[in-house]
Amino acid sequence: MTGNTFGENFKITTFGESHGKAIGVIVDGVPSNLTLSEEDIQRELDRRKPAQSFITSQRIEDDKVEILSGVFEGKTLGTPICMIVFNRNQRLEDYLDLKNKFRPGHADFTYFAKYGIYDYRGGGRASGRETLARVAAGAIAKKILEQKNIKIIGYTKSVFNIEAKKIDYNEIEKNPVRCPDKNAAKKIIKKIIEVQKLKDSVGGIVEVVVKNCPAGIGEPVFNKLDAMLAYAMLSIPSVKAFEIGTGFKCTTMFGSQQNDEFYYDRKLKRIKTKTNYSGGVLGGISTGEDIIFRIAVRPTSSIGKEQTTVDISGKEYEISIKGRHDPCICPRIIPVAEAMTAIVLVNLLKNA
Amino acid sequence: MTGNTFGENFKITTFGESHGKAIGVIVDGVPSNLTLSEEDIQRELDRRKPAQSFITSQRIEDDKVEILSGVFEGKTLGTPICMIVFNRNQRLEDYLDLKNKFRPGHADFTYFAKYGIYDYRGGGRASGRETLARVAAGAIAKKILEQKNIKIIGYTKSVFNIEAKKIDYNEIEKNPVRCPDKNAAKKIIKKIIEVQKLKDSVGGIVEVVVKNCPAGIGEPVFNKLDAMLAYAMLSIPSVKAFEIGTGFKCTTMFGSQQNDEFYYDRKLKRIKTKTNYSGGVLGGISTGEDIIFRIAVRPTSSIGKEQTTVDISGKEYEISIKGRHDPCICPRIIPVAEAMTAIVLVNLLKNA
Amino acid sequence: MTGNTFGENFKITTFGESHGKAIGVIVDGVPSNLTLSEEDIQRELDRRKPAQSFITSQRIEDDKVEILSGVFEGKTLGTPICMIVFNRNQRLEDYLDLKNKFRPGHADFTYFAKYGIYDYRGGGRASGRETLARVAAGAIAKKILEQKNIKIIGYTKSVFNIEAKKIDYNEIEKNPVRCPDKNAAKKIIKKIIEVQKLKDSVGGIVEVVVKNCPAGIGEPVFNKLDAMLAYAMLSIPSVKAFEIGTGFKCTTMFGSQQNDEFYYDRKLKRIKTKTNYSGGVLGGISTGEDIIFRIAVRPTSSIGKEQTTVDISGKEYEISIKGRHDPCICPRIIPVAEAMTAIVLVNLLKNA
Amino acid sequence: MTGNTFGENFKITTFGESHGKAIGVIVDGVPSNLTLSEEDIQRELDRRKPAQSFITSQRIEDDKVEILSGVFEGKTLGTPICMIVFNRNQRLEDYLDLKNKFRPGHADFTYFAKYGIYDYRGGGRASGRETLARVAAGAIAKKILEQKNIKIIGYTKSVFNIEAKKIDYNEIEKNPVRCPDKNAAKKIIKKIIEVQKLKDSVGGIVEVVVKNCPAGIGEPVFNKLDAMLAYAMLSIPSVKAFEIGTGFKCTTMFGSQQNDEFYYDRKLKRIKTKTNYSGGVLGGISTGEDIIFRIAVRPTSSIGKEQTTVDISGKEYEISIKGRHDPCICPRIIPVAEAMTAIVLVNLLKNA
Repeated sequence: MTGNTFGENFKITTFGESHGKAIGVIVDGVPSNLTLSEEDIQRELDRRKPAQSFITSQRIEDDKVEILSGVFEGKTLGTPICMIVFNRNQRLEDYLDLKNKFRPGHADFTYFAKYGIYDYRGGGRASGRETLARVAAGAIAKKILEQKNIKIIGYTKSVFNIEAKKIDYNEIEKNPVRCPDKNAAKKIIKKIIEVQKLKDSVGGIVEVVVKNCPAGIGEPVFNKLDAMLAYAMLSIPSVKAFEIGTGFKCTTMFGSQQNDEFYYDRKLKRIKTKTNYSGGVLGGISTGEDIIFRIAVRPTSSIGKEQTTVDISGKEYEISIKGRHDPCICPRIIPVAEAMTAIVLVNLLKNA
Repeated sequence: MTGNTFGENFKITTFGESHGKAIGVIVDGVPSNLTLSEEDIQRELDRRKPAQSFITSQRIEDDKVEILSGVFEGKTLGTPICMIVFNRNQRLEDYLDLKNKFRPGHADFTYFAKYGIYDYRGGGRASGRETLARVAAGAIAKKILEQKNIKIIGYTKSVFNIEAKKIDYNEIEKNPVRCPDKNAAKKIIKKIIEVQKLKDSVGGIVEVVVKNCPAGIGEPVFNKLDAMLAYAMLSIPSVKAFEIGTGFKCTTMFGSQQNDEFYYDRKLKRIKTKTNYSGGVLGGISTGEDIIFRIAVRPTSSIGKEQTTVDISGKEYEISIKGRHDPCICPRIIPVAEAMTAIVLVNLLKNA
Repeated sequence: MTGNTFGENFKITTFGESHGKAIGVIVDGVPSNLTLSEEDIQRELDRRKPAQSFITSQRIEDDKVEILSGVFEGKTLGTPICMIVFNRNQRLEDYLDLKNKFRPGHADFTYFAKYGIYDYRGGGRASGRETLARVAAGAIAKKILEQKNIKIIGYTKSVFNIEAKKIDYNEIEKNPVRCPDKNAAKKIIKKIIEVQKLKDSVGGIVEVVVKNCPAGIGEPVFNKLDAMLAYAMLSIPSVKAFEIGTGFKCTTMFGSQQNDEFYYDRKLKRIKTKTNYSGGVLGGISTGEDIIFRIAVRPTSSIGKEQTTVDISGKEYEISIKGRHDPCICPRIIPVAEAMTAIVLVNLLKNA
Repeated sequence: MTGNTFGENFKITTFGESHGKAIGVIVDGVPSNLTLSEEDIQRELDRRKPAQSFITSQRIEDDKVEILSGVFEGKTLGTPICMIVFNRNQRLEDYLDLKNKFRPGHADFTYFAKYGIYDYRGGGRASGRETLARVAAGAIAKKILEQKNIKIIGYTKSVFNIEAKKIDYNEIEKNPVRCPDKNAAKKIIKKIIEVQKLKDSVGGIVEVVVKNCPAGIGEPVFNKLDAMLAYAMLSIPSVKAFEIGTGFKCTTMFGSQQNDEFYYDRKLKRIKTKTNYSGGVLGGISTGEDIIFRIAVRPTSSIGKEQTTVDISGKEYEISIKGRHDPCICPRIIPVAEAMTAIVLVNLLKNA
């Protein structure tokens, strides 16, 4: 079993270390005759890039995507699309101090345990930078979904103990934390600045909503829509949990509360549920209601605060991670979560 | 993309409707020369079967597993192992009333939306009964793990608002709710009986711990150990959430709290972490610490209480589900969660 | 990588040793609402069964197929279909003499080399009997193709040096060697009887033609239609070669001869080729012309003639294989080749 | 089902049109800590490149491979290795005349039939140029096999009716047609020059031998070693047939001739066969003898001779293909066949 391919009908294979020559992805299974340009991809990549505001990493990643194959005269050929971003602006000096020392909360140690070697220059494949390949692939998936009027909306539901009290989709892209509640956004920003000053980081919850997904999507019994989403979400660096619909809250509910009753909507001329506690999925198949799920985003592993660790020989060190890291990764994880959601949906829609 | 196969190196393919002729599984990728008998499988199946106590479903499922292939003179041949349980003791009359009416919280509607047909006799493939095939396959996976001294322990962490305050592994199989805290177990049983009288059901949290998994297991970037576990867990009927380590709690933590610091353990002669907030996985690869995760189990969908619904033509009905359903499915989901965990681990260990 | 699954969209997984309890298959990816009965399957199985005439094996295999899942009230559910044939009428005494002795031309030795164990009772998974599972799955694939008017016709092209001089499809099922040329059939039958008397066996060539496959089927660059067919054909026991169109003959041809020129057929209103030397496939994708390929079928390995061999300890023996074996397996391989062809086509059509 | 990925444990995914920006491959599943440099890859690519001699295409393809990921300080990381060759020296003017006209023997028509669009500049994905990605991946596979002392040797067995009468491995790379018989080589070269003058092309047979493959490799019943080889070979452009061991010749043999008798080799201390008519594979698993197979290579489709065809609207044209095409592709297909053989073996060895 290899690890760098996801999906079967719309299959993405990513490559590249964070400080290697390039990061990229091959997307196989894209329908032919779809209009596609580098701008379509760049737009999504720009939503993920650092230094969008003062509260994200101040690295300048001048990430320009190039399409190397699969597009001819502005249209997809039906052949694999390779997209690539060359790595530039690498401050390798930030990493030399850390050579062979395992950063707490990072994958240095586990990669070394697994492979007997690792690229100590910034996380290699375990770096969040790998996710730009997913966002590029997701941009194509989103274009396919758009044709079916399916929309994916991700936002910061909470950071630390500050929760969005209302969900105004129009607000999301207006504030740097992508919070749909203007007031909560302000408080979150304040909190992040505070944490940043302490050379620390903080976690949060990202919620994703899928609009207009028709009923009938998902492949029981293993490739359930919610199982595939959980799989995709937990594959994103920093994500520690997934819940759909009521999620963990349903463990303190009764069946009579959690069950969504069916009714016939005369206007829409289709069967709907009165409530949506299931989050749009029953038995692993979409119900036609909004798909709603949440993921837990851990506080960024890279912190300036001193931490104790060991190097590959087991010798102890105090380390402090330099560089330009995000104190809270939620805003930048949103486009990644949306991309992986789009990729899951396109894979399952092909079977519908 | 089909839906009934899981895993690549240790590949299981399940079949069977809950009220069809039989339910079974083919397991491909089992090493040869492993001692294996029907008793090995039956033992695990018996942990999943209903009517183990008064608080689980009182259906008598006389589920005797038969091995049809892949075992010769008590040893595995390295060829696919087909295991089958014929369906007996079916009380079809319980379902006739419900013909063509969509039970709330069940997959009747979504199966019909997807396939244009469904087996109305008790859930078909969406029935919890499908999971016996997983438990059978998992029994083989567990035998393989035993040889490497890897142990999987599942238990009820909470039901409704009653939480286990201590974790005593020896207690788990002594009480019918598989709770590792004797006192919590009593309260949970009381709660379940109460809920049962109200013709309702209740949810809970199941926790799974993997002991002695070596460092280095998991395939980044998509087939991460935690991503595969989330995928496997969410594929189990009634599971609505997955979290590993601190899970959702880490969203209110700082990086300096969540990061597990490394040290060198002179006695064990290996690198360990002082804490285990990550739940035994970093960057999708096992750290060598205990793997700890939790799943949210929704209140059973089948309840005796009256509910409103529609039939396939959209006509409204009041229904009340008869039959012998579990008021809380946590105790019976535990062997399923353990089985799927074992299957994930064996798949990933083959790559180590 | 496991070995007992074929296909992705229409995925078959087979199980069972020739002298174990049962042989069967799970077919996943069958569309729902397809009319399907055990008779549909049995008809194809009967074409493969031994003792159809005096020149095939005289074993009486009373192979009755049972559908265990995936069909409800005569219609497919869209869920996995498990089909099973229980093994009866086993003359194990035929094999006891051969215990632990490697039959020449058989897989006893290689299975033992691979697995360190093998089922010595008649070939286990390597037995031709395994192919009944493929024929059962192929029967479903054929039903799907029929809806698109796609027909698969297999026949014996030659046995030893006797070749069919004309191809009369109506003749095929009228003679026991399934030869489309009545006169060649007579000579082949005579030859087979002659070989049988010598306790020997003989090989032949089977040709398969696919009618009405639309242009555009096949997935470059690896899952080409011809590559998938070659893969499927070589997976059939006794098949040692595959060629499409002119095949090996094209190696003595010029480009100007082999290239099929295009023209526009005004009656059919589509582009066709004047000749069909390519065998209906260009660049791995169907052209819309007949798909024509041939496979080489080796002389049956099981012969009554004395042969030298060794047992698992390396000790030498003279052995002579008893039992009721086919002196020429071509007529019985035809339904298997057709089944695998149908399975390949259905897999690739799902992408069209 | 997508088409651009091959293998499961050692998984290659290729991309790139012949006249697009670049051609490349991601190889996933390469063991870590393998010494690997661009020179290792370039050496194999140079064996495939055109203009190695006057009888191959005179295109100058200055194909320099770049490794973009997966290698760090000269060692593999265990992460995916992306290798890329940028397309330069494109003489697009050679193709403008042919725009929208379907070249006979080429895939222009079938790609258009499948995708409704195609890259008319030289074959796109169907071009032989795609195979450089396979050769690059195969170079890594070969390095892995070398560590196990497994060697793959490919050579031209025949061209037109000129056949190698003896097999001298040392001769192969000494003549431009890679024929192991010096005299046959001379005759073949003469024939090719003759054909070239006629603006025509000619086919041939390539034979591949695998030395030192241990017994026990191959995954019955579908992923048989010979089935995987046939699959891999037929996926190579211009290959129309595959045979292993005696291949088609066995159809005129008796079982007593084709069966290889076993004996115990006292010197090697292992069981061997006296003959090797099976070509080193029984029941889909390697016997430990040499693996020997042959492929039929069709005469190159691109010829200067006038041919009749139609354009996408069905209008008839006379065309004559300009450019620098190989009159016989056998010598350049050899490194491709070796590469695909290596990739199949590494995939199957991982299971051994």
